[in-house]
Amino acid sequence: MQAINVSIGFDKRLAAQDLAGSRAHAAMLLKAGVISSEDEAQIQEGLAAIEREMAEGTFPFRDEFEDIHMNVEARLRELIGPAAGRLHTARSRNDQVALDFRMWVRDACDRTIGQLRALQGALLAKAEAHADAIMPGFTHLQPAQPVTVGHHLMAYVEMFGRDAARFADARARMNESPLGAAALAGSPFPIDRQMTAAALGFDRPTANSLDSVSDRDFALESLAAGSICAIHLSRLAEEIVIWMTPQFGFVRLSDAFTTGSSIMPQKKNPDAAELVRAKAGRLLASFQQLAVVMKGLPLTYSKDMQEDKVPTFEAFDALELSLRAMAGMVADLQPNVAAMARAAGSGFSTATDLADWLVRELNLPFRDAHHVTGAAVKRAEELGQELSQLSLDELQKLDPRITASVYDVLTPEASARSRRSYGGTAPDQVRAQIKRWKDLLA
Amino acid sequence: MQAINVSIGFDKRLAAQDLAGSRAHAAMLLKAGVISSEDEAQIQEGLAAIEREMAEGTFPFRDEFEDIHMNVEARLRELIGPAAGRLHTARSRNDQVALDFRMWVRDACDRTIGQLRALQGALLAKAEAHADAIMPGFTHLQPAQPVTVGHHLMAYVEMFGRDAARFADARARMNESPLGAAALAGSPFPIDRQMTAAALGFDRPTANSLDSVSDRDFALESLAAGSICAIHLSRLAEEIVIWMTPQFGFVRLSDAFTTGSSIMPQKKNPDAAELVRAKAGRLLASFQQLAVVMKGLPLTYSKDMQEDKVPTFEAFDALELSLRAMAGMVADLQPNVAAMARAAGSGFSTATDLADWLVRELNLPFRDAHHVTGAAVKRAEELGQELSQLSLDELQKLDPRITASVYDVLTPEASARSRRSYGGTAPDQVRAQIKRWKDLLA
Amino acid sequence: MQAINVSIGFDKRLAAQDLAGSRAHAAMLLKAGVISSEDEAQIQEGLAAIEREMAEGTFPFRDEFEDIHMNVEARLRELIGPAAGRLHTARSRNDQVALDFRMWVRDACDRTIGQLRALQGALLAKAEAHADAIMPGFTHLQPAQPVTVGHHLMAYVEMFGRDAARFADARARMNESPLGAAALAGSPFPIDRQMTAAALGFDRPTANSLDSVSDRDFALESLAAGSICAIHLSRLAEEIVIWMTPQFGFVRLSDAFTTGSSIMPQKKNPDAAELVRAKAGRLLASFQQLAVVMKGLPLTYSKDMQEDKVPTFEAFDALELSLRAMAGMVADLQPNVAAMARAAGSGFSTATDLADWLVRELNLPFRDAHHVTGAAVKRAEELGQELSQLSLDELQKLDPRITASVYDVLTPEASARSRRSYGGTAPDQVRAQIKRWKDLLA
Amino acid sequence: MQAINVSIGFDKRLAAQDLAGSRAHAAMLLKAGVISSEDEAQIQEGLAAIEREMAEGTFPFRDEFEDIHMNVEARLRELIGPAAGRLHTARSRNDQVALDFRMWVRDACDRTIGQLRALQGALLAKAEAHADAIMPGFTHLQPAQPVTVGHHLMAYVEMFGRDAARFADARARMNESPLGAAALAGSPFPIDRQMTAAALGFDRPTANSLDSVSDRDFALESLAAGSICAIHLSRLAEEIVIWMTPQFGFVRLSDAFTTGSSIMPQKKNPDAAELVRAKAGRLLASFQQLAVVMKGLPLTYSKDMQEDKVPTFEAFDALELSLRAMAGMVADLQPNVAAMARAAGSGFSTATDLADWLVRELNLPFRDAHHVTGAAVKRAEELGQELSQLSLDELQKLDPRITASVYDVLTPEASARSRRSYGGTAPDQVRAQIKRWKDLLA
Repeated sequence: MQAINVSIGFDKRLAAQDLAGSRAHAAMLLKAGVISSEDEAQIQEGLAAIEREMAEGTFPFRDEFEDIHMNVEARLRELIGPAAGRLHTARSRNDQVALDFRMWVRDACDRTIGQLRALQGALLAKAEAHADAIMPGFTHLQPAQPVTVGHHLMAYVEMFGRDAARFADARARMNESPLGAAALAGSPFPIDRQMTAAALGFDRPTANSLDSVSDRDFALESLAAGSICAIHLSRLAEEIVIWMTPQFGFVRLSDAFTTGSSIMPQKKNPDAAELVRAKAGRLLASFQQLAVVMKGLPLTYSKDMQEDKVPTFEAFDALELSLRAMAGMVADLQPNVAAMARAAGSGFSTATDLADWLVRELNLPFRDAHHVTGAAVKRAEELGQELSQLSLDELQKLDPRITASVYDVLTPEASARSRRSYGGTAPDQVRAQIKRWKDLLA
Repeated sequence: MQAINVSIGFDKRLAAQDLAGSRAHAAMLLKAGVISSEDEAQIQEGLAAIEREMAEGTFPFRDEFEDIHMNVEARLRELIGPAAGRLHTARSRNDQVALDFRMWVRDACDRTIGQLRALQGALLAKAEAHADAIMPGFTHLQPAQPVTVGHHLMAYVEMFGRDAARFADARARMNESPLGAAALAGSPFPIDRQMTAAALGFDRPTANSLDSVSDRDFALESLAAGSICAIHLSRLAEEIVIWMTPQFGFVRLSDAFTTGSSIMPQKKNPDAAELVRAKAGRLLASFQQLAVVMKGLPLTYSKDMQEDKVPTFEAFDALELSLRAMAGMVADLQPNVAAMARAAGSGFSTATDLADWLVRELNLPFRDAHHVTGAAVKRAEELGQELSQLSLDELQKLDPRITASVYDVLTPEASARSRRSYGGTAPDQVRAQIKRWKDLLA
Repeated sequence: MQAINVSIGFDKRLAAQDLAGSRAHAAMLLKAGVISSEDEAQIQEGLAAIEREMAEGTFPFRDEFEDIHMNVEARLRELIGPAAGRLHTARSRNDQVALDFRMWVRDACDRTIGQLRALQGALLAKAEAHADAIMPGFTHLQPAQPVTVGHHLMAYVEMFGRDAARFADARARMNESPLGAAALAGSPFPIDRQMTAAALGFDRPTANSLDSVSDRDFALESLAAGSICAIHLSRLAEEIVIWMTPQFGFVRLSDAFTTGSSIMPQKKNPDAAELVRAKAGRLLASFQQLAVVMKGLPLTYSKDMQEDKVPTFEAFDALELSLRAMAGMVADLQPNVAAMARAAGSGFSTATDLADWLVRELNLPFRDAHHVTGAAVKRAEELGQELSQLSLDELQKLDPRITASVYDVLTPEASARSRRSYGGTAPDQVRAQIKRWKDLLA
Repeated sequence: MQAINVSIGFDKRLAAQDLAGSRAHAAMLLKAGVISSEDEAQIQEGLAAIEREMAEGTFPFRDEFEDIHMNVEARLRELIGPAAGRLHTARSRNDQVALDFRMWVRDACDRTIGQLRALQGALLAKAEAHADAIMPGFTHLQPAQPVTVGHHLMAYVEMFGRDAARFADARARMNESPLGAAALAGSPFPIDRQMTAAALGFDRPTANSLDSVSDRDFALESLAAGSICAIHLSRLAEEIVIWMTPQFGFVRLSDAFTTGSSIMPQKKNPDAAELVRAKAGRLLASFQQLAVVMKGLPLTYSKDMQEDKVPTFEAFDALELSLRAMAGMVADLQPNVAAMARAAGSGFSTATDLADWLVRELNLPFRDAHHVTGAAVKRAEELGQELSQLSLDELQKLDPRITASVYDVLTPEASARSRRSYGGTAPDQVRAQIKRWKDLLA
């Protein structure tokens, strides 16, 4: 029973939050006239002493006191005697644990947003450095149309931007203080929940005491945001793994993010990218775990809910590690722009551009434009050329109205440059988006 | 291959969105000078005719054209001839499907928010009707402290309020138009993405064309919000199932939401509540399914992403059905207030109130208050009484300073009334929250 | 990078398996003539020394050597010098980790089967003690028909029996040795894979070296078996939680498995049952996590697979803890047979028995039997009686052919006793199943 | 309520099982003397008529009768009158639905095993055709050592073999008949459960009636087996997607399994492989869905369990479609053996072979062998050669004892050929495994 019940092994991570909550509660009890100023002073001193013990690593965590709250409570009693008991007036372990955990998740969201910003910064820098470089844009992992390297990287800036916004929304929604809900029904003491809420950085107190002690939405929503973020990370990680193959050869990573073999110098195992990719499993599982725990639980607190912390801690640990590793990899990444450009230029990748040119410049119906383009590709194939290498003579055999200006769209560079619609791959569009994001993150 | 590839069986649900998107695109192409007014007029007429066919159920859905986009395109060509081809200038199936699906999810979020509001309305009405009624507040499914029925129901109003807010946040985040991203790289035509975005009710166009065609965050985030909402529904459903047992006997539901047996009239199977509880499985699975599909996909579009629609459709179908069923059940629910009050009054449920009174009124230290309370409970047990039935004489034997005013907190009603802290269970606090929510939802 | 890469923190749990694998490998290398007997002797001595260090807790685990395999290897070199290098002939870290982890999972399956047997034993003892006791059989958590307490408990014996069989099947399927697959392609040395397989308790070596290093089915299948088992545990835990409510009052648990309050002596929080119920979340999540990690991984080993161990360790830890806690609870559980029998006797729970009697004894068509039964229930309701309390006179008003022998089926005890079909709830049937299981587990 | 309750839309798929179960039940009732031979004959005739109506598509499925069981029952009454009611003697909808669904899952397992065998057959044929062809063996998607194409394909034969075994185990475990469990407690009629079990192809009747109507392990275990199988399919699908890129160019698929563009002839989108990869999401989600539904359900039947069928149907539909598509793709797949061999020969892929040769032939300690190999690779790199192109002169500069026989292991072909340990990549080993499997599947 003790083995399954004890939580101090993991909930000690709530120590800072627990102490902050207790200090705010004591100050409020004083102001509300519930405890005396002598008691309050003793309590604050005792809590300060415990903070020091924790900082110094001398605080005695003891399994016999089961959880962090009881450990702190027991230590406080050792330090200051009976006044320690006064701290628990108008408070219960139920609202205390709800408060501590909510503050921990709030802090974790803030850290994660910071790490997402750092990762976006690394992507922006890399995108700017390669705003003009050409690579194949893929669908189905098949080269489809030339795009710019900067544009590709900026797609991830968008994703991580949405992730940060999701964490920010979750944080705003959770920013209500459950302290004062007591065991579940609220308190008959004249407590001031607005005061403790404000002291602890909350926007307001929660509005229903039963909900306050039985709600774990703040963790669930954060884990869902983390899951989606981990999906994004797994996609970028997968691209890095593929790009690192000798077959692609699109990027290089230094030894800081790869492992290898002394006797096979070419083998660069993208271990860090693979581990980041795998962490999607952890994030998805953590959301799933807590959701399964909460499914079908009657109100209010059930002991099942003690299983909320480990998956949440594990998820944020994995996510933060992944974000830091990915930011490091992105900064470290050296695109092989020549290989990328070469890949972008093969496979008649500008066939769509030719068709579009025929529609746009000669006003051909789409069907006819496709027919002419198909014939041009066929002719190029016969001649072993790319479209941009076909002579004007050859092209005019297909439609005499074709002019030399068609070559303005037939190279990969020209193709990319031409896609200037808002959000398109043209370097000036990419630079505009880089600027927009730099301003946003500034 | 066709069996695994064809999607018209399910993506026909995108028909309305597909037609709206095409109409906005055609109007923009005209304004941008890309197509002639004759072509545009023909296209608009053809699309209007298709809308009529759909409304009348005469539109010929054909497997040979695989998906909804090709079905509409083929039909348009039959109706208006070659001008149909002009509609596809500066557009690709990739941005078209991204647009249609995003609009469908946006509509589904709006519908869901409406249903959440209706459910909150039903809860508010029931909470108001029973704002003073007393029931046990449970922890661990053990009666802990008396609470009001209205307060218990209002806990769910809070939960569903957060759910609605999550859907609203998701909706705001997804409200960017991918139309104009074309295949993946943007378009060389002078298209006006702001114009189509505005015409279709979007706040702005998306900012990166690669991201636009490979992003399914809008579905994932909605499914995550739906999962959390389904968890809430499962908790309320579980409570209804438990409350409907003859052992609890807390509520009655009419035959509209139960099934039974002609020969066992007492047996009231809460089928609707059980089905709602089970739907949590569907919602969680749908999020999980799409997340697994997206995990590790390189940019941009991969055919895997065709598996985005079925789980999303299924999830919203299940969620909307659950919300409607639950709103109906809540309206139908008849609390057995006598049974609830009886349950709330047994088990020395006001022991905490006595202890709090001793602290508050006699300024006893917590430890001593607990000691006196324990003794009072023991004495009541010996006498076969509840705490409120103990004579003042008996109480004063434990501490002579106890006065008759202690009885003000010893009945369940008095206990509930005394918990007047913000968000507490006291009827006036509950009524204040009911009013706040009514104003919010007005 | 090191933070994300280091695994010694968790894979030290593979130490015993790693050493056993190395000893078998060294012995085989000697027999195959690949290493000398001097080298082999040194290696065996060094490994024995390491085993002693581990047993004594003096083995120096070092982060700088990343994982358990490198830690052992480095230590072996420190202890015996260059001969340590010979141990790695015809072996790679890929087949070594596959071997170690597979052996760990095999051991965990064996332990789990043992714990399932112990839990079945506890259930059998309790079922035997209460083979005749009557309780309501529930559908929809509504009392449906009387059953015996022994029969209800035996339902779980069946479930846990299937669980044990699933672990046994998984164990049999995984019992092939990957050692000798080397990095991925097998070895050019004349190794004897049958010999190492036999030495390590495997049925045979694996048949494809690529599969051997990239297969994690053994973990996945075990986690799936664990998930289903955890679902069973959650069902029994839920029943305990419900039965412990004062409303049901079906069972009592001692303080060893509950927590309570000094001032509310009735409050018995079934913490252990709740924690067991919650562990279903962990098990399901672990399967999901590893499945997500493996999804879409190309052959053979990818670093993603390092994420296989933590979810597997966590899952088995949670499962074993749950099984032990549940076995303890079952042994501790005191059914309140009077309360159960009372509940089984109310609500016209033998109405079906009356209908069946009319069909069986009077040969009434089902529809008529239902009609008569409905009328009897209605009359009993009017008189405030249960069916068994209705006078023969009253019954014969409904059908004059009814005889006194009908009372043989109208009490809950009689009803239960009458259901003697194979696997039915009659005490003799239950005892037969108890005997069958005792023989099986003997 | 009806919307959430009606199941005939999906459970009509149980029609054949429902009819078979009813026919077996009627025959048993006759033999047990519970119904007359006239009634039995009428029932059998009526059921036969319904079978014909179903086969002809004229059976009237009606929502008003909710589910398949009630639809059949109502139709039987229309066809044969009151005798229809006799069929329901000693049977309940609870054991009927448990029976029907279990038989459906059993049939689905059998079909799936057949499809797995077909897929293994396709792999075996392709492996045999390319038993000698050389390709890179990958770790971390980096070429590591040369392997044979046949060996790589045979890795999947092993995986799908385990999958088939898992389905076979699940099938064996589920092959017990729940018929006769009645509502939940068994029956007071003298039914013969062994007889119906045998008639329906079961090994025996289930042993506990409560478990019989509340058990869904058979579905859960099958979905778990399906999930693991889908993971395997996703891995092969991922490899096909990667191999189809122009960068790899390892395989070709015909237009039957790809889509493309008329104007970009090289673009071969591996749609079928991508869809198979995505189906892993569906399978995992289905297991998860049913597990979440079952979590924490008290015994016995709860309406939640109606949510068992849709995820199971969807999962098997997806799995069977995936297996068929993959078998088709494997048969269709044309390896580009030249490209594969070229890739296998680059990157000093035989460096390990050189090191092993030095250990084996010259008895060099591992460390020294590595040192010499590293130097050889470095020299080859300087000369722009592969290891097999280094002159003996160059090699002997590193160690004069090296002889010309070293070239026997330095080409990719020689390397693969040398790995003759059991299960290794050498063509003769691969052919032995092909033969073993062909015998097993014959």
